[in-house]
Amino acid sequence: MAGSTFVFQPYGKRLKVTGAKTVLEAAQKIGVNISSICGGKGLCGKCRVIVRRGEEHLSSASQAEKRVLSEDDLKSGFRLACRANVADKGMIVIEVPRESQVDQQRLLLRGVERTVSLAPAVRKVTVHLEKPSLVDVESDVDRLLNAVESRIGQKPKVDYEALRKVPLIIREGDWTVTVTLWRNREVIAVEPGATSDLYGFAVDIGTTKLAAYLLNLTAGRTAATASTMNPQIPYGEDVISRIHYIMEDENNLTRLQEAVVEGINQLIREACQNAGVAPEEIHDMTMAGNTAMHHIFLGIPPNYVSLIPYPAALQSPVDVKARDLRVKIDRGAYVHALPTIAGFVGGDAVADILATGIHESDDLSMVIDIGTNTEIVLGNKAKLTACSCASGPAFEGAHIKFGMRATTGAIEHLWIDPDTYEVGYRTIGDEKPRGLCGSAIVDAAAGMLKAEIIDHRGRFNMRLETPRLRRGDKAGEFVLAWRNEAGIDSDIVVTQSDIREVQLAKAAIFTGTSILMKQMRVSPEMIHKIFLAGAFGNYVDPQNARIIGMYPDVPLERVHFVGNTAGSGARMALLSVEARDMAEEIAKRVEYVELGADPSFQDEFLEATHLPHHEVRRFSNVMKMLRKGKKKGQSPTGDD
Amino acid sequence: MAGSTFVFQPYGKRLKVTGAKTVLEAAQKIGVNISSICGGKGLCGKCRVIVRRGEEHLSSASQAEKRVLSEDDLKSGFRLACRANVADKGMIVIEVPRESQVDQQRLLLRGVERTVSLAPAVRKVTVHLEKPSLVDVESDVDRLLNAVESRIGQKPKVDYEALRKVPLIIREGDWTVTVTLWRNREVIAVEPGATSDLYGFAVDIGTTKLAAYLLNLTAGRTAATASTMNPQIPYGEDVISRIHYIMEDENNLTRLQEAVVEGINQLIREACQNAGVAPEEIHDMTMAGNTAMHHIFLGIPPNYVSLIPYPAALQSPVDVKARDLRVKIDRGAYVHALPTIAGFVGGDAVADILATGIHESDDLSMVIDIGTNTEIVLGNKAKLTACSCASGPAFEGAHIKFGMRATTGAIEHLWIDPDTYEVGYRTIGDEKPRGLCGSAIVDAAAGMLKAEIIDHRGRFNMRLETPRLRRGDKAGEFVLAWRNEAGIDSDIVVTQSDIREVQLAKAAIFTGTSILMKQMRVSPEMIHKIFLAGAFGNYVDPQNARIIGMYPDVPLERVHFVGNTAGSGARMALLSVEARDMAEEIAKRVEYVELGADPSFQDEFLEATHLPHHEVRRFSNVMKMLRKGKKKGQSPTGDD
Repeated sequence: MAGSTFVFQPYGKRLKVTGAKTVLEAAQKIGVNISSICGGKGLCGKCRVIVRRGEEHLSSASQAEKRVLSEDDLKSGFRLACRANVADKGMIVIEVPRESQVDQQRLLLRGVERTVSLAPAVRKVTVHLEKPSLVDVESDVDRLLNAVESRIGQKPKVDYEALRKVPLIIREGDWTVTVTLWRNREVIAVEPGATSDLYGFAVDIGTTKLAAYLLNLTAGRTAATASTMNPQIPYGEDVISRIHYIMEDENNLTRLQEAVVEGINQLIREACQNAGVAPEEIHDMTMAGNTAMHHIFLGIPPNYVSLIPYPAALQSPVDVKARDLRVKIDRGAYVHALPTIAGFVGGDAVADILATGIHESDDLSMVIDIGTNTEIVLGNKAKLTACSCASGPAFEGAHIKFGMRATTGAIEHLWIDPDTYEVGYRTIGDEKPRGLCGSAIVDAAAGMLKAEIIDHRGRFNMRLETPRLRRGDKAGEFVLAWRNEAGIDSDIVVTQSDIREVQLAKAAIFTGTSILMKQMRVSPEMIHKIFLAGAFGNYVDPQNARIIGMYPDVPLERVHFVGNTAGSGARMALLSVEARDMAEEIAKRVEYVELGADPSFQDEFLEATHLPHHEVRRFSNVMKMLRKGKKKGQSPTGDD
Repeated sequence: MAGSTFVFQPYGKRLKVTGAKTVLEAAQKIGVNISSICGGKGLCGKCRVIVRRGEEHLSSASQAEKRVLSEDDLKSGFRLACRANVADKGMIVIEVPRESQVDQQRLLLRGVERTVSLAPAVRKVTVHLEKPSLVDVESDVDRLLNAVESRIGQKPKVDYEALRKVPLIIREGDWTVTVTLWRNREVIAVEPGATSDLYGFAVDIGTTKLAAYLLNLTAGRTAATASTMNPQIPYGEDVISRIHYIMEDENNLTRLQEAVVEGINQLIREACQNAGVAPEEIHDMTMAGNTAMHHIFLGIPPNYVSLIPYPAALQSPVDVKARDLRVKIDRGAYVHALPTIAGFVGGDAVADILATGIHESDDLSMVIDIGTNTEIVLGNKAKLTACSCASGPAFEGAHIKFGMRATTGAIEHLWIDPDTYEVGYRTIGDEKPRGLCGSAIVDAAAGMLKAEIIDHRGRFNMRLETPRLRRGDKAGEFVLAWRNEAGIDSDIVVTQSDIREVQLAKAAIFTGTSILMKQMRVSPEMIHKIFLAGAFGNYVDPQNARIIGMYPDVPLERVHFVGNTAGSGARMALLSVEARDMAEEIAKRVEYVELGADPSFQDEFLEATHLPHHEVRRFSNVMKMLRKGKKKGQSPTGDD
């Protein structure tokens, strides 16, 4: 219904909104970011808001809301923003509680990066031209290109936008001109006089975050970094929600593309400002992301990525003019999109391999890039296989009752005394706890397993005598932080359902590692290194992750954190065309394994839901430690 | 001054206009095209309008207006639209007399065209793809490109706009797809299923007119033609006025580019509608035009084209994406701009050569493409030289008291009885005469010379006894049509000043032919063929043009009309990449001769102002005929 006036607290944003069907749509129109993981389907319960005024202008609570919200919640005026329909015109005041606010998240920018020879795709060449005369009336552009040819040994093409500027630029520079060449094949920019500084921009487009790096390509160093949440989040927090959103309306792809491009343009402005560089001085850009993010950024429909047999629309690397993408750098510059591998194994996995170098090693290594989708690569110089697991957003805090992103107030690590069941924790920003982020969820599950609060099947041991263990709304729950110590108006608990979510998520990841190992006929002992990549992979406690059986039971010294390797790969490709060639080679070499096509998939998955695993002999190190831990009453949880 | 309300009669257009400084600007804003040859400098007197109401809201008559308009004119309310400044707000009613209206002009679309092998830059290839499966998850784009590669033997690139569409198109076509390939190197379009029809668009951008051809590239035939006035005319009728306009403000280049692109888009829509073709079905385009028109269309500043040593900004042929030019055809298509030769010898001259084939002949030929700038090419297989003459717009009707464009009511041919001095004439559309177009101006000068109304120096013989010869405002004038037979409220006369204009214009052209001949050391007898090109060249009486000494005195059977060769060249380049290669070759081969640099230029020019020439022995055929004509009292003027 048209023309309601919305006020969103605590933002103080007040606007007349026309054409919004739901409170969530109104918030999006106004620019208030409300958490929404399921993409507005009434499933995740993350868009809880409180209606402070104007309840009468909204529809009454839907079935979905009655399912997700408790009686108390409903009485207190809680609604799901995505399900609360605007019924008629009027003034509606909405409070967005902290847990539903999308904050700036702690973003990981660092990542390992192997040294590459400095050989960017762009370079500058300064030429001095003869002035035309009545006996030499060669045209401006031909004069310039011939001079460049005599310097580089081949005649380049010239980009249209650069070409247009030639007559004015060569006279402004008094017949001394600097051209920027792309791969020696094309003049993409012309500047008056002699200049040498050359900049490039590398972007890692994550489902959740954008990480960007402004690089000085002459010096081969990072001049500035910037990061932000992916502005597509309000349209769905995971890849599948966004693909569904795109399939709903033919304009939605453009909408999401514009959102991410605007986010990148924002990062360009920010990084440039910090480094004192003008955006037009950026003459090259690289981009890595999962296949859906890659496709959406390029405006390619990702519709079929999510449908069996999950083909990517584009696997090869591609160079697209920045202006065609409306990316605001030099108009003649190209954006190089790293290759993808398959529908759910994208340029981020290619970058993982590139950055860790496992494709060049004799030893067998595994990379696990944990996210809503987890990409796993297993291989060495001789062979590379990869798969993707739908591990879900549990480790991003979704589907977990008190789950939240890694923002201020999130418990990032915790430990449970196996004898007293007391809980210690550390929060981001040392604020009062508001919930748990992914690494703490793993700590909780591992700690509860060690303390035998849950058994190997994940069931709560309700016979334990501690006030922390109690019966909740539907089943057991374990109190991590009491209301009086918390930053929210509630005890912070782990529920039986939360543990189930963890079991499903870790089982998905372990199944991926297991099927890849089976297909390559290798055992855990043969894996020389396991690289944990991505933000979650960087903060998770490796021992606890191993305790719950997230990855094969290898000695901990073989586990390495490599940080944001997607960003590292994008940077390497920006610094060196050799890295681009290598990435293309990698993408071609990797054999994609579709887990669902493996006949043992169901069995593997079910067995892996056990903690650490149904076949305990596959986790002999862990089992040994669990027995020892309980006996000694120690917390074996490390504190990274 | 802001906010005056203008009514323009007879258009009936009435609008409140803000920010217009002059009546001409107000007319341009409203969309009323008033003739303006000098570009609003108060020199040409072609923008005469009558102020019917609101005189008090305009400035009083300027010096320029007093110089150009007669006492009577001023008393009758005549003003120059470009000099009548808006002084304050109010209602102003302006009548645009017929002679100041820019009408649709008779446009020449036909042109000779040599047969070229049908080998367009684009072609269609239909491929049938295997559907992806769990054991074959190759990406959509790679699948398509590999299939195309196996058909054409090389792997093409794919245009970004085509690439984006691949996933939806291949499924829409149930895995049968037709790609359009550009030069076998790039996929520029994808369509579902099997299609074969292929269209291209050729445009000749003249200073005055746009001529366009929609070609079926499969059949090699013209599907539709369209033409219109160049929408840049209101900004200045000749090349120099437009270049000055561009130099006045940095946004003016964009303004002129947008004007011509919008004109072309209009022609595309019109031609497509007539042929039942969608604009997106046009997959290729070619463009020929003089250097300034070429540059402005491409958005390249033509500023230096008009400054010594008159270098072109771009000589080589160039392919620019239609979308970068905002030309509304297939977004992946290229626009191929034919090469230019020098600042004042453009792609139109290249097209002249291409269409006439003089570059392949053993015999020496000359092409004269007559316009405001006249391009002259002299040469054969061994050598080609070219020059440009500033012949001025006299043959387009400018600077001639009753001169007008070749529109309805224009006298296009006339003949004068050398004994009675009676005048016969034929008008375009058989309407009552309103003025003279270029071909009639030549007829008038030649007829008056034959009848000895003027002498060889162009001076009026005021002793003749005929009421048609009389003293006008400033000097003699000869009445061609009396007021009672005319379509305007005045006698139509030729003035002494008009004859001077003709002398200057024809002298400029003849000087060009003469200096080219001198530099190639050839005499008129050695010239095997003279091709008269362009609209004026097509309608002019060749004998009369020779009588006044416009071109060398060769036997008339050697003179050929070739029509709009610029359009022919653009069509040939559209039909055949061989023609493009040939055009590039031609542009490189032609030696540009800068007339101003020839030491004999001044003398040559002064001698050529005589009718037919100061050195009468250079026009022995003409002199023979002039004597005979007068003796017999015949009109030797042909009636083509």
